[in-house]
Amino acid sequence: MASKILFIGGTGYIGKFIVEASAKAGHPTFVLVRESTLSNPAKSAVINNFKNLGVNFLVGDLFDHESLVKAIKQVDVVISTVGHAQLIEQDRIIAAIKEAGNVKRFFPSEFGNDVDRVNAVEPARSAFATKANIRRAIEAEGIPYTYVSSNFFSGYFLVSFNQPGATAPPRDKVVILGDGNPKAVFNKEDDIATYTIKAVDDPRTLNKILYIKPPANTISFNDLVSLWEKKIGKTLERIYVPEEQLLKNIQEAPFPDSVELALFHCVFVKGDHTNFKIEPSFGVEASELYPDVKYTTVEEYLDQFV
Amino acid sequence: MASKILFIGGTGYIGKFIVEASAKAGHPTFVLVRESTLSNPAKSAVINNFKNLGVNFLVGDLFDHESLVKAIKQVDVVISTVGHAQLIEQDRIIAAIKEAGNVKRFFPSEFGNDVDRVNAVEPARSAFATKANIRRAIEAEGIPYTYVSSNFFSGYFLVSFNQPGATAPPRDKVVILGDGNPKAVFNKEDDIATYTIKAVDDPRTLNKILYIKPPANTISFNDLVSLWEKKIGKTLERIYVPEEQLLKNIQEAPFPDSVELALFHCVFVKGDHTNFKIEPSFGVEASELYPDVKYTTVEEYLDQFV
Repeated sequence: MASKILFIGGTGYIGKFIVEASAKAGHPTFVLVRESTLSNPAKSAVINNFKNLGVNFLVGDLFDHESLVKAIKQVDVVISTVGHAQLIEQDRIIAAIKEAGNVKRFFPSEFGNDVDRVNAVEPARSAFATKANIRRAIEAEGIPYTYVSSNFFSGYFLVSFNQPGATAPPRDKVVILGDGNPKAVFNKEDDIATYTIKAVDDPRTLNKILYIKPPANTISFNDLVSLWEKKIGKTLERIYVPEEQLLKNIQEAPFPDSVELALFHCVFVKGDHTNFKIEPSFGVEASELYPDVKYTTVEEYLDQFV
Repeated sequence: MASKILFIGGTGYIGKFIVEASAKAGHPTFVLVRESTLSNPAKSAVINNFKNLGVNFLVGDLFDHESLVKAIKQVDVVISTVGHAQLIEQDRIIAAIKEAGNVKRFFPSEFGNDVDRVNAVEPARSAFATKANIRRAIEAEGIPYTYVSSNFFSGYFLVSFNQPGATAPPRDKVVILGDGNPKAVFNKEDDIATYTIKAVDDPRTLNKILYIKPPANTISFNDLVSLWEKKIGKTLERIYVPEEQLLKNIQEAPFPDSVELALFHCVFVKGDHTNFKIEPSFGVEASELYPDVKYTTVEEYLDQFV
C-alpha cells in the first residue's frame, strides 16, 4: 500500500511537480490549501491539474495549528515544499507532526544544496542556515525524515545559463563566475519529483539525505558551455569573473540580486554541489538507488533550445 | 550637539550611504562590525572609506547580546540597515535597546515601501510582514522610533528600468508591468541617506513614518519611459504585461525572482508607493520637512545614461 502523502506548499514552484508525481505513482495525495488559493486565478491552472489527477484538497493554513494537525492526522507522510519566506515557519509543521503523532516520514522544504555542506557567503549563508536549523529541530524531536538535496533546477538555471535576465541560453558571449571548473548539478523538475516520491516508502532513505546527482547531469560550467557550443555549432566568447570581483558584486548588489549571486558563488566557485563525498552514514544517491528511472540529461535538456 | 549614532548593518547596500551621511553631518558615528568584516577584502573599499570619514568601529555581532548592549550604551540613536536575511533578527536589537535603556531613537531597517500600507502578493507579502512585525515589537516596547519609507533606490531600479538583467535603461523595447499608470517613487541613495540623517534629531519625525517622496521623483512608468525617450530622441516599443499574466509569472518563478516580480507588482500595478495620503497622525514627507536639501531628480539621474 502506497503511503498517504500531505503536501504543504504544494502549489509552489517545485511542489506542483512533486504533487503530480505523487498522484501518478498512486499515492493518495492531499494538498493543504487556503480557501483563497482555490479561487486564485493565478493558481487556476495548477489547481485544475491537481483536480484532474484526483488530488484531495484540505482547506487549512500553516499558521492555523488545528487545521495543520487535522490534515496531518489523515496521512502517513508530510512533504513540505513551502517557499523561501515560509522556511522559518516550518517549526509550526514540526509542532503539528509532534502533536499528531502518526507521521512515518517528513520531508522538509529543501530541494537545493545540502545545507549542512555549504561554503556560502551572506546573504545565501543565512538562507541555508534557516534550512539547517529546521533539520536540527526535526532531529531534536526524533521525527523520521528524508532531506532531498536536488541541487539546481534545470528549468531555472539551464534555461538562462545563469545569465541575469536571460530567457534562453547565450549565443554570443557567456559570463562565467570563477574559473568555470567546479562541477555543478542540474536536474529537471519532473525528475526531482519522481526521485522524491520513490524515496517516500523506501527504508534506504529513512533519516538520510537523498542526493540527486545523476552522473550525466554533473558538469562544470566550462563543459556545459562546450556542450552547448557543439550543439549550436558556434563558439561563444567566455568572460570570466574572478572570485574577488564576484564577492564585491555580492556586497554591492541589493536584495534579492545579492541572494542569487551568493548562491552562484557557492555552487560555481566553491563547488558546493560536488566538493564532498556522500557517505553511507548520512546520504544516498538517487540515480544509484533507482537505476530504472530514465532521467533527462543536461545534454537532452539543451536540445529544446537549439 | 549632534546625537551619537550606532549603525547595525552599516556596510550593507543602503547602510554605507547613511553611515557616510552621518559622519559628514558631524554625528559621532559608530558601526557595529564583526572582526571578520574588517579583514574581508570584499568590504575593504567600504571600510577604508569609513576610516577616512572618522567612523568608529565597534567589534560585535547581532547574535552576541552583550556586544550589542555594550555598543548601544555608547550612543543616542540606533540605525539598523541590516539586510533581508537579518530583518527578523532585529528583535535582538529591540531587546538590547530595552536593556541598555538610553536610546532616544531607533530606526529599524526599512528603506522601501511603507509596509503597513501595501497590497502585495506572496512572496513579497511575507517580506513586508516581517518588517511590519518589527514595527509592532518596537511600539509594544515603547521605544522611540522613525520608520524611513524611501521607496525605490534609483541605483537599482532606474539603472535597469526594472528590465531583468539589464545594466542600462532600454533603447529598443521596454516591458511595462500593468498599464504603466500608477506612480512610483525613485530616490538616489545619497539623498535617502541625507534625509535619514536630518530626521535623527528632529522632533517632527519622532514616532512617525518619514516618507521620501519628492514631487520630481514621483512618476508613472509610462511617464518615465516618455522622459527617457525624449532624452535619447527615440521611441521605444512598449510591451505591456497584464496583471493576470504577471500574477501567473510570480507564481511560476522560483525564489528569488518571485520576490522581485511580486515587489514590482505591488509598486507598478497596485501603486503602493503613492495610493494613500500621508496623514500628520502617522507620517511626514521629507522634501517638505527639508526643502533646503537639493535632491537629485529622476530627470537629472537619467542624464548619466544618455
